[in-house]
Amino acid sequence: MVTPARREKNHSKSANITATASKIPLERRERRSGHRGCILWFTGLPAAGKSSIANELEAALFARGCQTFVLDGDRMRHGLCRDLGFSPDDRQENIRRAGEVAALFAQARFICIASFISPYRADRSLVRGMNAGNFFEVFVNAPLSVCEARDPKGLYVKARENKIRNFTGISAPYEPPMNPEIELRTDKLSVAESVEKILRQLKKRRVVKSR
Amino acid sequence: MVTPARREKNHSKSANITATASKIPLERRERRSGHRGCILWFTGLPAAGKSSIANELEAALFARGCQTFVLDGDRMRHGLCRDLGFSPDDRQENIRRAGEVAALFAQARFICIASFISPYRADRSLVRGMNAGNFFEVFVNAPLSVCEARDPKGLYVKARENKIRNFTGISAPYEPPMNPEIELRTDKLSVAESVEKILRQLKKRRVVKSR
Repeated sequence: MVTPARREKNHSKSANITATASKIPLERRERRSGHRGCILWFTGLPAAGKSSIANELEAALFARGCQTFVLDGDRMRHGLCRDLGFSPDDRQENIRRAGEVAALFAQARFICIASFISPYRADRSLVRGMNAGNFFEVFVNAPLSVCEARDPKGLYVKARENKIRNFTGISAPYEPPMNPEIELRTDKLSVAESVEKILRQLKKRRVVKSR
Repeated sequence: MVTPARREKNHSKSANITATASKIPLERRERRSGHRGCILWFTGLPAAGKSSIANELEAALFARGCQTFVLDGDRMRHGLCRDLGFSPDDRQENIRRAGEVAALFAQARFICIASFISPYRADRSLVRGMNAGNFFEVFVNAPLSVCEARDPKGLYVKARENKIRNFTGISAPYEPPMNPEIELRTDKLSVAESVEKILRQLKKRRVVKSR
């Protein structure tokens, strides 16, 4: 459902701004990097394994000669989104901005690994819509009980004690993807196995070359 | 001067977010791309020549094998900053976001060409502060009369007729840089000469290799 607030945000206020074209066709960027640009959008509960897999995947892609960059909540919330909190509206704006930045990296022919809890289906759909054909949703999926038992930063404990409000999985909702391009059951797969599964998909979908 | 609103924006609301490290040291990214990452921050009046020079410079750098990307007002205002207008507060937020995105591209070892009117000194200083040592201010400088005579998009005409409000140079202020790393007098230099001047500076400052 599109609320008036959402509509407002998606409507550009810059009527007198026109885009000028880059002199570097995307094909030339692609030829140089040897692969397409795309967004791998990781979504999942806190402690589901998003960051670990994102960082290992980045290393694996870099080792193959790919252009790749991890964009994550940590990086964004201390920078571009430092003015935002964790209310539904702020989460929506956080994801919108993340999606816009990821789109820029994909335009620069990066495999952009965007790793965000991104709990709302509608917000993820918005980003998908902005990046038609180059957006792959990766559901990093472990049961809440497993994530809570891991709790590497002690955040679930704080959330249970009400010391953190609006904590996804405890005091804020998480809406799992309906049709993710890739699902990783991280209670069953190791990080290395998860990375392998993504690489296979990237080859199958002709983002990177098989070899 | 730091206003309360400005302070608020610069203070992160994400107390429970900690950064995780990339497994790719910056040096390895640099070794692959063969140059440092940095931000070339173009500032100047509308029609001073920012976009033309930015696009030619991007092409010249790409031809030398550099990683480079143009981030400009056009690109940002239809995407990441579509919720912002042209009031001083919105302009400040526009530049803050642009600076954060440029910083991400510099981290990915791009020569990021950020081309924004960015009329306020304080806002440019903020971005410089976020990117210490990797920020080069490029003053794209032509007299107002020259810019107004060029007026490729007919915006000065509209501004004089009050059809556009808050138009820099006409109905909104422009504060020229005090100590830009590079100044381009575009009423005297051709686009090609301007590009050459920037390339010389990039070599001198050891961003790219001489050859």
